[in-house]
Amino acid sequence: MSAVADPLPSWNEGAAKTAILDFVRKTTDATNPDFVREEDRIATFDQDGTLWVEHPFYAQLAFALQRLAGLAPEHPEWQSTEPYKSALAGDMAAFAKFTMNDLEQLVAATHAGMTTGEFQTIVADWIGKAKHPRWDRPYTDLVYQPMLEVMQYLRASRYTVYIVTGGGQAFVRAYARQVYGSQPEEVIGSSLAAQFGYDANGKAVLMRPPKLLLYDDSSGKPQDIYLFLGRPPRAAFGNSTGDQQMLEYTQSGGGARLMALVLHDDDKREYAYGPDSAQTDTKFGAFTQALYDEAKANNWIIVSIKRDWKRIFPFER
Amino acid sequence: MSAVADPLPSWNEGAAKTAILDFVRKTTDATNPDFVREEDRIATFDQDGTLWVEHPFYAQLAFALQRLAGLAPEHPEWQSTEPYKSALAGDMAAFAKFTMNDLEQLVAATHAGMTTGEFQTIVADWIGKAKHPRWDRPYTDLVYQPMLEVMQYLRASRYTVYIVTGGGQAFVRAYARQVYGSQPEEVIGSSLAAQFGYDANGKAVLMRPPKLLLYDDSSGKPQDIYLFLGRPPRAAFGNSTGDQQMLEYTQSGGGARLMALVLHDDDKREYAYGPDSAQTDTKFGAFTQALYDEAKANNWIIVSIKRDWKRIFPFER
Repeated sequence: MSAVADPLPSWNEGAAKTAILDFVRKTTDATNPDFVREEDRIATFDQDGTLWVEHPFYAQLAFALQRLAGLAPEHPEWQSTEPYKSALAGDMAAFAKFTMNDLEQLVAATHAGMTTGEFQTIVADWIGKAKHPRWDRPYTDLVYQPMLEVMQYLRASRYTVYIVTGGGQAFVRAYARQVYGSQPEEVIGSSLAAQFGYDANGKAVLMRPPKLLLYDDSSGKPQDIYLFLGRPPRAAFGNSTGDQQMLEYTQSGGGARLMALVLHDDDKREYAYGPDSAQTDTKFGAFTQALYDEAKANNWIIVSIKRDWKRIFPFER
Repeated sequence: MSAVADPLPSWNEGAAKTAILDFVRKTTDATNPDFVREEDRIATFDQDGTLWVEHPFYAQLAFALQRLAGLAPEHPEWQSTEPYKSALAGDMAAFAKFTMNDLEQLVAATHAGMTTGEFQTIVADWIGKAKHPRWDRPYTDLVYQPMLEVMQYLRASRYTVYIVTGGGQAFVRAYARQVYGSQPEEVIGSSLAAQFGYDANGKAVLMRPPKLLLYDDSSGKPQDIYLFLGRPPRAAFGNSTGDQQMLEYTQSGGGARLMALVLHDDDKREYAYGPDSAQTDTKFGAFTQALYDEAKANNWIIVSIKRDWKRIFPFER
C-alpha cells in the first residue's frame, strides 16, 4: 500500500481485503497464469445485505406496503381479504408466514398494471422520499462504502460489474445509476413479463402485467446470469443462502475465481444475523451454519462487517 | 468522404448510407442537440436476413434437421410420428405448415436435454462444418459485409451493438464472437429456461430442459430488449415483420433514432423476397407491403440490397 493509493480505504487490513486485492492483481496482469481477458472480466453482486442494508426489512417491501396503503382507498375489499389485510395492518408476524403466492399477490397489486415508464417514475419518486426507520435517512444513503469501493476498484480494473438481485429488476434499475453507477443492462433481477402494445395514439408501449417471468433468487441467480451473460462470473459477492448457487456457479467456471459472502455480525454499527443469531427464517435467504461450512470448505471469503469494515456508510466520516 | 476514410466502403452512395452516417455523426457530436451520451448508445440488429443469409432456410433449421437425423437411430418412433417424420423426410411442404407446437417439439428433440456447455460444443462443431447449399461455403461466410461495416462503425463511435434474434440465443452465442465480434451478453434471443443443478461430482451445472422461456420475435423483441437493456435502442436494424415491433419501440423513445429495414430485392446476387415477391408465409416474418407502407410513413430507412450494397459478402473481392 506504500506508493500506490489504497483502492479499498474503508477496509481494515486482513484476509478478506488481501484476497480481493490479490484476485484483481493476478487476473489483470498479462504475465500471470491467472490472467483474464477484459471481455471475460465479469463480477456479480447481490444487492440486499451485500450492497445495502436489508434489515429490519427490504426497501422494496417498504415500497410495496406504502404503495398498497396508498392504493387501499380504491380497494375496500382489501380490508377483509388476505394477504392485503395483514399487509395493510403492518402485521409483521403474519407477513413472516406469507407464502410465495401471497407475495406474488402483493407484487401484482403494487408493481403491475402500469407502463414500464410509469413504474420507473413511481419508484424514483418513492426512493427520493422514503427513509429508513433506524437512521432516518434515505435508503440510498445506506449503501456499504466498502462495497462501493470494491465495485469501483473492479471497474477501474476493466471488470464489468453486475447487480444480480432477488429484488425487482425494474425497481433496482430505477435508482441504480444514481446509487451504484450501474446502467440498466448491468442490473439483473426478478422480473415481470413486459407486454408490448400501443397507447391511444398508436405509439409503442410496454405494460407490466401481473405475471412473474424471472424469480432471481437461489437457483434463479445462476440461471439468469447464464440467460443474460452466457457464462459464470469471475467474481461473485453475496450474503445469504439466496446467493449460494451463484457462488457455486462462479466456482464451477474453474481457474481464478473470487467467491465472497458478507457476514452481518455487527449489531452496534449495523445488524447481526449470522449463523450465531436467532434468525431462522430463510424465506429470503439467511447466512446459515450450513452455508458457513460450505464457504469454509471451498475457501470462499467471509467478510466480517465487524472486523473487516473500518467504515460502513458513505455518510460516516 | 474526402480526407477521412469511408467507414462504409461496401455501400453505394445514396439515401441509406447518408442516413446512417448522419445519424452517427449527430448523436456522437457533443455540440449537436441530438447528442447521445455514451452509456445510452445502444444499437440492435436482427440476425437472420439482416446480418446473414436466411434463405432458402435458416442455418438453425439446417442444424435442427441434421441433428434430428443424427439422433433418429435412437428414436425409431420418429419414423412414424409427426412432426419428426416430415422433418426427417425433409418434406419442406409439410414443414411450411408446422405449427409453433410442432416447432417446439423439434427444438425439444434437438436443442434440449444436455448441459449448456455441451450444447455450446455441439453448435460450435456443427457450424464449423456445415455449408450453405447454394454457395457451398460455411454459413458463417454468408454474413453481409455492409452490415459488418455498420456494426464496426457504430462500435468505433462508442455504441454498444446487440444482436436481437428470433433464433436461439445459445445457438447464436456459440459463434457470435468469432463471426460478429459480439460477446455472449451482446446476444439476445429465444431461450430455453436453463435449470441449475449438480453433476455426479457435486459441481454446479446448468441443464437445458425442453421449456421455452423467451420467444424473441415480433412483440418478443421489444419485450426482451426491455428485459435485458431497460430502454429502447437508439438504432435498430431488421428485415421483416418479425422486427416491426422492435423498430416501433425504438422510435417510441423519441429524439434521434435510426430505424432501418433490409429489403431483399437482388435475386441474382442473393435472394428477392420483398413485397413484390410471391413470399406469403409470414410465420417467421416477411417484408410485407404493410410493413413497407409503415416504413415509408415513419421515415424508416429501406436498405435495398440491389441498389445500396456494392458488395454483399466478405469473400467477394
